[in-house]
Amino acid sequence: MSLEELQLKIKALEEELRQAKHGGAAPRQKITHMSGEVVDTNPYSRLMALKRMGIVEDYEKIRTHTVAVVGVGGVGSVTAEMLTRCGIGKLLLFDYDKVELANMNRLFFQPHQAGLSKVEAAANTLHFINPDVTFESHNYNITTVDNFDHFIDRIKCGSLTGGPVDLVLSCVDNYEARMAVNRACNELGQSWFESGVAENAVSGHIQFLIPGESACFDCAPPLVVASQIDERTLKREGVCAASLPTTMGIVAGLLVQNVLKFLLNFGEVSYYLGYNALLDFFPAMSVKPNPQCEDSWCRRRQAEYAAKKASEPKIEKQEVKEEEVVHEDNEWGICLVDEATPEEASSSACASVPSLVQGITVAYERPAPVDEATSKVVDDADDTSLDDLMAQMKAL
Amino acid sequence: MSLEELQLKIKALEEELRQAKHGGAAPRQKITHMSGEVVDTNPYSRLMALKRMGIVEDYEKIRTHTVAVVGVGGVGSVTAEMLTRCGIGKLLLFDYDKVELANMNRLFFQPHQAGLSKVEAAANTLHFINPDVTFESHNYNITTVDNFDHFIDRIKCGSLTGGPVDLVLSCVDNYEARMAVNRACNELGQSWFESGVAENAVSGHIQFLIPGESACFDCAPPLVVASQIDERTLKREGVCAASLPTTMGIVAGLLVQNVLKFLLNFGEVSYYLGYNALLDFFPAMSVKPNPQCEDSWCRRRQAEYAAKKASEPKIEKQEVKEEEVVHEDNEWGICLVDEATPEEASSSACASVPSLVQGITVAYERPAPVDEATSKVVDDADDTSLDDLMAQMKAL
Repeated sequence: MSLEELQLKIKALEEELRQAKHGGAAPRQKITHMSGEVVDTNPYSRLMALKRMGIVEDYEKIRTHTVAVVGVGGVGSVTAEMLTRCGIGKLLLFDYDKVELANMNRLFFQPHQAGLSKVEAAANTLHFINPDVTFESHNYNITTVDNFDHFIDRIKCGSLTGGPVDLVLSCVDNYEARMAVNRACNELGQSWFESGVAENAVSGHIQFLIPGESACFDCAPPLVVASQIDERTLKREGVCAASLPTTMGIVAGLLVQNVLKFLLNFGEVSYYLGYNALLDFFPAMSVKPNPQCEDSWCRRRQAEYAAKKASEPKIEKQEVKEEEVVHEDNEWGICLVDEATPEEASSSACASVPSLVQGITVAYERPAPVDEATSKVVDDADDTSLDDLMAQMKAL
Repeated sequence: MSLEELQLKIKALEEELRQAKHGGAAPRQKITHMSGEVVDTNPYSRLMALKRMGIVEDYEKIRTHTVAVVGVGGVGSVTAEMLTRCGIGKLLLFDYDKVELANMNRLFFQPHQAGLSKVEAAANTLHFINPDVTFESHNYNITTVDNFDHFIDRIKCGSLTGGPVDLVLSCVDNYEARMAVNRACNELGQSWFESGVAENAVSGHIQFLIPGESACFDCAPPLVVASQIDERTLKREGVCAASLPTTMGIVAGLLVQNVLKFLLNFGEVSYYLGYNALLDFFPAMSVKPNPQCEDSWCRRRQAEYAAKKASEPKIEKQEVKEEEVVHEDNEWGICLVDEATPEEASSSACASVPSLVQGITVAYERPAPVDEATSKVVDDADDTSLDDLMAQMKAL
């Protein structure tokens, strides 16, 4: 081959390489206007068909919405992919973890991404799947003081128009991060969804939290789906949790489906929906906020909500009820510490455990009040220590 | 640059290109032995943890299993990905469609795969995700005569050891293909799962079919999840169906979860599980086979099953029942055309409609018997014609 031919060959290889790095082709052009045209080249035709089917009135509205996904692991990555494929306006991604081969038993990440930060790897893949979505990614732990302030700022000002995001989705795997999201959302009056999967991989749940209106994450012990499995086999510090792509994909699907119902105003949004994989059982319920919640912002939001409710004209609820045939479990009927005074509430270690529908249980019971003089648990009926309870909480 | 340098550069580019085509890195080495070792580099650690958690007794057994996935679209591709990530032994993929940009509103396929055959694109991606799985793909329509014979042969002899596959999963989107799977499985006595998603994208179901033991697809009109949506808005020939990554991901997740429960012997396998996305409602039931089923292989399998049951020693069922607390709907109690003689059954157009649990409805009613002299429907109480019914069936 001549020098010239070799140089041409190099040019061709370089071009091929450039394309191969994006999966063999350049990313598609951005689409300015969502169309319902039924052609094979239109990535939105099957979504816009939701309008023709009478499900969604204004599907295009999804492009104006911003959602923050906190935790881009087994649930969060699939959540972000579903929203991206649905054509959400903007996604904020928060995580500080790296992709590992040990994550390959869940959907989304691929082996060649091992070693990359999860937010970076996710944003790259998602941008390639749908370049119409705006991505903002933050490779940090939201629970440290500085990062928490930055996180609050992005939730408050991170939307496409510089205002608050429409929803925060918690897809994290630990208690501290959930409490950080809870604190931020109570302070901002920001609606959010919590999601979780058990350490034994065979149950999970989603929960919708509207500050002041539904129970916050600090109002009651976290609700989890009851399993027939001995709880003592569950994860302890340092033990490898089990996970399945099925359970995580289903929880992500239920989460995003409810996000779509909320953003695009169709169907009924679930307040708490559990999934027991062993029995294919899906308990649903809703929980009122706890007037004695330890989070002062939660109590403030409750007062605001009560004032707002009091100022609204009364609506005859009976007529609406008659149409709700199927979903009786999901009524707004379960009350935490109902009618109790603060004294009554704090005098009983069990007062904050809500009445639960079949199939849902609390992750742990509140520690009994501590006698400050002796620093010992007063009501020590079972021999679970405060340390044990804290360890259980952390293991969630 | 010298000729030699240019040639070296070409070699380097070619190697880089080879790797880039697999996402920037070579596929990982095959893993001979599934280990539970908790290290970041072990793709099976979170699955093997199911043993430590007391969920699955012998997780490694999954490597001996073969599953056929018929239809590699919105549900089938995610189904195949989940099984691949779980480390299934072998997957057989059947589809004759090409990837289009119009599929990008569902999980799995990416824009650069547009134009490729679905089975080829899927097998490439899945092999890269988990090279331990064996893939066999068939790019054809199973409903033509020749292909149907080949399909039967692969179900019968396609396992890792040359025997029948362990399960067939139907993830197709039309009536003819479902009937072909049904016919093949009845003939072979092959257990299979059916799955489906409504044309309005907001409901779906899975169904477990054991020839002779549970209703086959021809025993009764297909059961679908009731929607509050006007049925007349549903797909007609040529109309673009709506779809959502959420609903399809959830149906795939429920399907594969039940496949895992069946193959690895944990939890309870659901016979029929529906999903109503608008209400987050999940009706479950089971349906006995129809003694007057039009499929002669189904009737033969029923006779075999009855004979097998009659020869078994009676087990006190009461004791087992007492442990089944939660899932009352999923009892083996709903009977098709119970105790009816063939004459009675065929004399009533409604006789083959099973008693259904709340939330499930039949996709259509069997056409009323036709008076051969006039070729008109005898009982024409409503004005739905036979043609309309056939069109409805096809639109499923």
